[in-house]
Amino acid sequence: MTQEPKIAYFTEDASVETVNARVSESTDARLQTVMASLVRHLHAFVKDVELTQAEWDIAIDFLTKTGQICDENRQEFILLSDVLGVSMLVDAINNRRPTGATENTVLGPFHVDGVPEYEMGANITQAGGRETCRFYGTVTDLDGNPVEGARIDVWSDSEDGFYDVQQPDIQPRNNNRGVFTTGPDGRYWFEGIKPVSYPIPDDGPVGKMLGKLGRHPYRPAHMHFIVSAEGFDPVTTHTFVAGDKYLTSDAVFGVKESLIAEFTPVENGETLWESNYDFVLHRSE
Amino acid sequence: MTQEPKIAYFTEDASVETVNARVSESTDARLQTVMASLVRHLHAFVKDVELTQAEWDIAIDFLTKTGQICDENRQEFILLSDVLGVSMLVDAINNRRPTGATENTVLGPFHVDGVPEYEMGANITQAGGRETCRFYGTVTDLDGNPVEGARIDVWSDSEDGFYDVQQPDIQPRNNNRGVFTTGPDGRYWFEGIKPVSYPIPDDGPVGKMLGKLGRHPYRPAHMHFIVSAEGFDPVTTHTFVAGDKYLTSDAVFGVKESLIAEFTPVENGETLWESNYDFVLHRSE
Ligand SMILES: [Fe+2]
Ligand SMILES: [Fe+2]
Repeated sequence: MTQEPKIAYFTEDASVETVNARVSESTDARLQTVMASLVRHLHAFVKDVELTQAEWDIAIDFLTKTGQICDENRQEFILLSDVLGVSMLVDAINNRRPTGATENTVLGPFHVDGVPEYEMGANITQAGGRETCRFYGTVTDLDGNPVEGARIDVWSDSEDGFYDVQQPDIQPRNNNRGVFTTGPDGRYWFEGIKPVSYPIPDDGPVGKMLGKLGRHPYRPAHMHFIVSAEGFDPVTTHTFVAGDKYLTSDAVFGVKESLIAEFTPVENGETLWESNYDFVLHRSE
Repeated sequence: MTQEPKIAYFTEDASVETVNARVSESTDARLQTVMASLVRHLHAFVKDVELTQAEWDIAIDFLTKTGQICDENRQEFILLSDVLGVSMLVDAINNRRPTGATENTVLGPFHVDGVPEYEMGANITQAGGRETCRFYGTVTDLDGNPVEGARIDVWSDSEDGFYDVQQPDIQPRNNNRGVFTTGPDGRYWFEGIKPVSYPIPDDGPVGKMLGKLGRHPYRPAHMHFIVSAEGFDPVTTHTFVAGDKYLTSDAVFGVKESLIAEFTPVENGETLWESNYDFVLHRSE
């Protein structure tokens, strides 16, 4: 495995070329592309700021602590990606759609597979639920035709700002989660609560970093949706509660203007609030 | 701590500005500079390669495993920095010197403080030592004047390719380590072994990455030196054994052409080899 690279010895000027010349020509082409770009941008960063040895020490320590706090229930590197806008950027690049189609936002760490399927109109709140809310709208294609058989997977936090998976003691399970399927009219409606804003876990290295940057750890209140139907690109998104005080400073940059939904008080109805949001799906290519 | 940034909502085009606008104006100025540059280059990388969701998953998993293999004796993020050329780049940026002054290279993880100080001529090999070698040379300033009182801290691996700290069972301690001090003539000389090439730890995530890139984990044979004297910039460096087969493919990019030293066989002497290298120090500014 001895190599004879084109550029053998390290120099500050040719640092990128020296490192990238070392990769074997038989390496997977995509891996070569990704690594070459990573090295180029990483070295450009170090040169740009003329990183000191002490700052490099801090970076090594930060990355190590970020890895070491991870366990089955905590993923601090995803948090790091989130608060640096990288998660949203990857999501945006991989989910470009024509104008008018509902936009994506990050999945987040609290989605659960295999939750109960309900009839339209069901209430997904199993425990708690003072600020009841009726969610409704339509699922259509880009031409406005209703989409039959669209699967609507929804989840939100509780009124305390926690997802059910963060509160394993609260029964019954699947609090504020459910799956619904549209009929021929493409309409959906169900009851839940008006979601509340909550902080991402901020007692680790990422929280400390946010503190040093003068950034808070809160996400504006939102309802999660995955809307999918045969023949269409699935949409993973949230609707955000209009007027939330964190809308313009979401810790993970998840808010897009088109995803802000009105939540209006109900005068004489079964819930205190209602929120209308229509989903527009883009046909798969 | 609620902020009203100039750019509130995420868009793919303005991703960098959206993230950097969130940092509080009272944040330490250097931290702002470093983080803004980091976000700019990180987003440029993601956009450049149009990183897929699956690749992002791999990156998160790789970083997590890299953090989790670290312990008191193993620092996998330093290895990662080393094999991407980042350690050498930081070293180069922070140790620029006039032409003619001895160049720096990476410290490496095996330096030890408080090792024995010896008289010139002593042998630092406490155990093993078939390929004995006499190291000698002078320490001068840039004008060729000898430097008196220069402290020469040296260490190498054993003939098995391990540093003594990697072989805690071998006695006596401080095998192949020592500190010497020059007299008025600036000369140094001591005995040790002709160092041998060795692999960096390659049974973790970084080793797997090297494998996928078709890169071997070896470092060419080298003797470590830290040469310091009152009034001069200290030099942390190695001399590399001329002719080593890994000289042009050092896994950590440590080799600089000026640091390659001849090791010549001795006909009738106390050692099998000898190696001359002269150090030139740059006065501190
Ligand atoms: Fe959420
Ligand atoms: Fe070494």
